[in-house]
Amino acid sequence: MIYTITLNPAIDLVIITKKLEANTVNRTENFELQPNGKGVNVSFILKKMGIKNMATGIGGGFTLDYITAGLEEKGIKTKFLKVKEPTRINVFTRVLDQNVEYKEVNPGPEVGPEVQDKFLKYLKDTLKADDTLIISGSFSKGIKAEYLVEIAKITAEKDIKLVIDSSSKVVLDTLQYQPYLLKPNDQELASFFDLNEKLDQEKIIELARKLISAGCQNVLVSLGENGAALINKDHAYFGNAPKIQALNTAGAGDTMLGTFIGEKSKAKSDTAALKSAIAAASDTASRSGLTDFKLEKYLKEIQVSEIK
Amino acid sequence: MIYTITLNPAIDLVIITKKLEANTVNRTENFELQPNGKGVNVSFILKKMGIKNMATGIGGGFTLDYITAGLEEKGIKTKFLKVKEPTRINVFTRVLDQNVEYKEVNPGPEVGPEVQDKFLKYLKDTLKADDTLIISGSFSKGIKAEYLVEIAKITAEKDIKLVIDSSSKVVLDTLQYQPYLLKPNDQELASFFDLNEKLDQEKIIELARKLISAGCQNVLVSLGENGAALINKDHAYFGNAPKIQALNTAGAGDTMLGTFIGEKSKAKSDTAALKSAIAAASDTASRSGLTDFKLEKYLKEIQVSEIK
Repeated sequence: MIYTITLNPAIDLVIITKKLEANTVNRTENFELQPNGKGVNVSFILKKMGIKNMATGIGGGFTLDYITAGLEEKGIKTKFLKVKEPTRINVFTRVLDQNVEYKEVNPGPEVGPEVQDKFLKYLKDTLKADDTLIISGSFSKGIKAEYLVEIAKITAEKDIKLVIDSSSKVVLDTLQYQPYLLKPNDQELASFFDLNEKLDQEKIIELARKLISAGCQNVLVSLGENGAALINKDHAYFGNAPKIQALNTAGAGDTMLGTFIGEKSKAKSDTAALKSAIAAASDTASRSGLTDFKLEKYLKEIQVSEIK
Repeated sequence: MIYTITLNPAIDLVIITKKLEANTVNRTENFELQPNGKGVNVSFILKKMGIKNMATGIGGGFTLDYITAGLEEKGIKTKFLKVKEPTRINVFTRVLDQNVEYKEVNPGPEVGPEVQDKFLKYLKDTLKADDTLIISGSFSKGIKAEYLVEIAKITAEKDIKLVIDSSSKVVLDTLQYQPYLLKPNDQELASFFDLNEKLDQEKIIELARKLISAGCQNVLVSLGENGAALINKDHAYFGNAPKIQALNTAGAGDTMLGTFIGEKSKAKSDTAALKSAIAAASDTASRSGLTDFKLEKYLKEIQVSEIK
């Protein structure tokens, strides 16, 4: 079974309005609610690929209920532990007159040590050898970055494939537990090594190989409009991104990760999985929701090359 | 029994953030969710005064569930008819660096004729002589202003005290059904007569008496920092507002209305009810939530005078 973990789920409230003026009532044109959170998105992507998976994590209130209802409506099983405060609602306001977007990302609820321990116990009791565990995104208030290491330890003990999408430098401390895959973007990869520079191909390979030597099995690096790279012990593959008009890049990284893991779970080759992952992520970036996996036109435009 | 009607309930999402910049992620300081809607607020106020009441209306989705749960948690019974789309979430963002507030008021869900008819039937089947019905606020998409007249007709047939807080000119068409009370503010009172001017005391009395001659029993006019007026067949009372530092005037009008009706239901005099209503509304305006009815200091500052 594939499990996703979201420790700070969110609802996206997407508002469209002609104007946004201070200290007056702005009557808006339209609003839409969407369940979100990086692990939640990965679950939706896997399910769209026909892959059974379970969405887990920690959240609270009626806003969490909305997210789990949205997942279950799509046939995805859920197991979220509950805290007292509600899961956050993030607000994205597109102002037509100014042609700008205001993104307001709210803090998550406070999660105490008791619920954190209970969630680790749930993982210990539930996960079995050969399961895959994907942990994505930020943590709620009260959960330290080191919680990631505790989860990694459990997966190592039980021989579970661990997949991590986190911008925290604490991922370096999980490498001793041989995670199956890390998915940084180029900026995150640089920040793991305290660099603050635009990485070229050579540097990406060099840094990814440092992660591999320290124990990681695969590094999938998303590069935005430059595509993505997959680096492991034996190979370094780069794939270009197709030309798209980016509309909403939210969820593109989650789509890339979910598609890659989904393709690998179907025993596809690294290069085929990388190509699909780039195509699906590009499609997600070009529309308001997640990809519908009609990817022929994108796949034609993507070449994957091995860098020796 | 006292019933409140809210035909376009809302959740308020109140965000505090240091900055709000376009096209970048603004990580906010704090957010809070509150059940809202003008009738919902009146229900909360009545309950705070120890007066049993029932909150009714039309809404939808998990957001309506949150509102009804909030009401029921306070011991207020609810009866909301459900539509498919969710009840709206309005967003109020206070930006600390700029010292401004951005208010985004979203449209309500579409309410079809079937649900509208069902709600009228519910009122016909449920209301009894001597009940009070308070209808407050805007209507959801699909509900015409004339719906107010249909409700007024039902209350007249059944000898029910009708209370209306609406900015729609259609209130004029309800006067033939002798509503117990209208609660316009001064701007709304002017707009009922197609005037667009600041009304003085004399003009307020003149216009209110026109409403009285057309059938209305009482007119409660809220005047913001100038207090409020109560005009009926026999009297015209004016009360000043105490000096306050206004923090959040949302809900002040609902507090005034709820307190006035609550005091009258306890057989208080017009002048006593007007005084309490101004004090409670002032207290609501001076804080982030609704009043807690500790009003001694405000009551001392309010004088009610009769204008002959």
